[in-house]
Amino acid sequence: MSLTAAQSVDRDRLWSRLEALGAIGASGDGGVCRLALSAEDIAARALLAEWARARGYSLHVDAIANLFVRREGSDPHAPPVVTGSHLDTQPAGGRYDGAYGVLAGLEALEAFDDAGLVTCCPIEVVAWTNEEGARFAPGAMGSMVCTGALALESLMDQRDGAGTPLRVALEATLAALPSAQRRDARGPIAAYVEAHIEQGPRLEAAGQMIGVVEGIQGVRWFDVSVTGVAAHAGTTPRALRRDALQDAHCIIRALNELLFDPDDLLRFTVGRFVVHPNSRNTVPAAVDFSIDLRHPDAATLGRLGDHIADTCQRNARQCRVEVREVLRKLPAVFDARVTAVIEESARRLALPAQRMSSGAFHDAFFLNDICPAGMIFIPCAAGVSHSPAECIEADDAAAGARVLAEVLAQLASSAPLEPVQR
Amino acid sequence: MSLTAAQSVDRDRLWSRLEALGAIGASGDGGVCRLALSAEDIAARALLAEWARARGYSLHVDAIANLFVRREGSDPHAPPVVTGSHLDTQPAGGRYDGAYGVLAGLEALEAFDDAGLVTCCPIEVVAWTNEEGARFAPGAMGSMVCTGALALESLMDQRDGAGTPLRVALEATLAALPSAQRRDARGPIAAYVEAHIEQGPRLEAAGQMIGVVEGIQGVRWFDVSVTGVAAHAGTTPRALRRDALQDAHCIIRALNELLFDPDDLLRFTVGRFVVHPNSRNTVPAAVDFSIDLRHPDAATLGRLGDHIADTCQRNARQCRVEVREVLRKLPAVFDARVTAVIEESARRLALPAQRMSSGAFHDAFFLNDICPAGMIFIPCAAGVSHSPAECIEADDAAAGARVLAEVLAQLASSAPLEPVQR
Repeated sequence: MSLTAAQSVDRDRLWSRLEALGAIGASGDGGVCRLALSAEDIAARALLAEWARARGYSLHVDAIANLFVRREGSDPHAPPVVTGSHLDTQPAGGRYDGAYGVLAGLEALEAFDDAGLVTCCPIEVVAWTNEEGARFAPGAMGSMVCTGALALESLMDQRDGAGTPLRVALEATLAALPSAQRRDARGPIAAYVEAHIEQGPRLEAAGQMIGVVEGIQGVRWFDVSVTGVAAHAGTTPRALRRDALQDAHCIIRALNELLFDPDDLLRFTVGRFVVHPNSRNTVPAAVDFSIDLRHPDAATLGRLGDHIADTCQRNARQCRVEVREVLRKLPAVFDARVTAVIEESARRLALPAQRMSSGAFHDAFFLNDICPAGMIFIPCAAGVSHSPAECIEADDAAAGARVLAEVLAQLASSAPLEPVQR
Repeated sequence: MSLTAAQSVDRDRLWSRLEALGAIGASGDGGVCRLALSAEDIAARALLAEWARARGYSLHVDAIANLFVRREGSDPHAPPVVTGSHLDTQPAGGRYDGAYGVLAGLEALEAFDDAGLVTCCPIEVVAWTNEEGARFAPGAMGSMVCTGALALESLMDQRDGAGTPLRVALEATLAALPSAQRRDARGPIAAYVEAHIEQGPRLEAAGQMIGVVEGIQGVRWFDVSVTGVAAHAGTTPRALRRDALQDAHCIIRALNELLFDPDDLLRFTVGRFVVHPNSRNTVPAAVDFSIDLRHPDAATLGRLGDHIADTCQRNARQCRVEVREVLRKLPAVFDARVTAVIEESARRLALPAQRMSSGAFHDAFFLNDICPAGMIFIPCAAGVSHSPAECIEADDAAAGARVLAEVLAQLASSAPLEPVQR
């Protein structure tokens, strides 16, 4: 039965949809800027909704604007099996991060239709709101609200760089899709499977088409604020300066030492660094920068992350330093039953696959807390992601969608998996 | 004669005008954001024009939007004695940097009227365009175009951070003041005297009210671009990164060593530092930062400045580095005759004064290349400038305006000074 669905996956249809979606927010250099809840995000949602309506799927949206495309099953009372990912991108992002998981899910639903397949559970394809966290912090906001990790009300007054509150951006996004039915943010989910590009180089290097993802490394995010005093660059002697940029520089130097890992497993990134007033002839009054710290081992992540605030404080010279932890997520291990279904499906489809863990985090990281969850990776060229140079092969995209269709058919064909005991 | 003009300087009138001007672009924290050619700058020019018109002074403007308020002299053929400064501020600037010199000049003209004083040369109060260079580079743009150091056409396509070309901002500014007569950017000037806050701590520390400025330290400005590759913060091992922020960090570390001066005479500032795409979970693809280097000694400034490009190149690890020098100005020595007139005027007014050099550069730096020039400093609290905390005393403001009125009266009372032989 399920092989039929996988065989009905249409490589060219999936690829043309990836191209159509990639045109929304296209930056002209092959990349995409489609920030969460922006006009581009709204346009992408509208396109997804149009494709869904053409097949007669129903549309649902919750208070954080997670958008669900639902194909009914035979049991009206069964909780849905959910797949999907996100439509938002980094400011200089690629065409496939997030978009691939949503469109692979849609492709699976259409393959079910084309194969005349009826499942027991309904299947829903979700576009989670603001996975990237590039416009509003934190990332994975939609899946965190859906799974109860974050309270929506606590986020509403968050502002983007232009001062727009999340509340306003959410209202605009919800108002733009009046045909979607409103639902509670937290309903029961039978299982969650997310297809995604690997965003790393391992599958390509190993010549594999499918990554069977066993888990996700842990992550901690910090915001550091360094406050000094603005002063004239021409008149103020070094000894009298309280230069926030120079102090931030000292702090980063110390963090580089603290977080140096000869095995190169730890990931430490200062991705955001904003100077005030940012004028060439003014000694910087303040710097705000971010720390992104990841490690597959919970104990290592805990120990090193716990040293960050102290290291920042000790290495400032003339400035005041504040450190706030804005995200902490321990490494995740996916449900072994879901992982086994993915591995078995790839084997039956004769697609070369390997088990692996994820360096990036994904919405599945949070769904894993409330239901059996898993992920399917496909290769991306040279492992490059969060970049306009992000690139995948159409055959790999189709292979991932075939495995996803197979897995969804199996998970939705009978009674839901028993909930995990935690 | 001239003492009469100085005595007619009205402390409270000058102070109330400083307050009125400081309200335009007020940032709410005591500071001002009045970027060059912005709506706030246009409003400040309109206010100056209104005060000028009330006294019957004529208004003139050149192609770079330098705005001149002219009080005629008895000789219609004599070149003007010019005073003034600028109305634009840093993004988080103060109320007195620039504004003081323009309003002290206006106060001197009004004092001449109140004293019934007729000068031989006309006197003009100028508001130079874009001295700060915070919105469009380089700073001192108006005085550089006026003195021939820069060609206006070479600047027209410069864009601000929002992408607005200088040409468009200039047109808006010129269109907003149709009553000002257009004139050539480069006419003869008999002499130039600029009053300004010290922007340093020396006058206050020495208990002096007047700084007789003998010269300005030299300055070199560089723009550094570091280009790496954006990558995913969670998946990309350190060994595979080309992290522009980490390379910029290494470069600044090396520059700190190159430019360390135990005597603390050299000024080295990284005031501007912009990261692309500036997202917390993306390895930075590019960093653009500025270098502001100053020293009173031409040989030292030349030698150290000449090492900057090479130091930047050698200390990048995985990224490509470009270094462009965008401003180079050797230390200036003001005309000894102008300096003597300033010193003598302060002595006659019994105001405590000292000779000094300027750490900041000013429009007078460039005017000094085409006419006898000089500067008058007044103290500012704790030497703080380019900051909302910038603060001066009303008595000091009035004292500086009295010296300025005395100096202008003297320079404009008879035939112009002979041009300097260069």
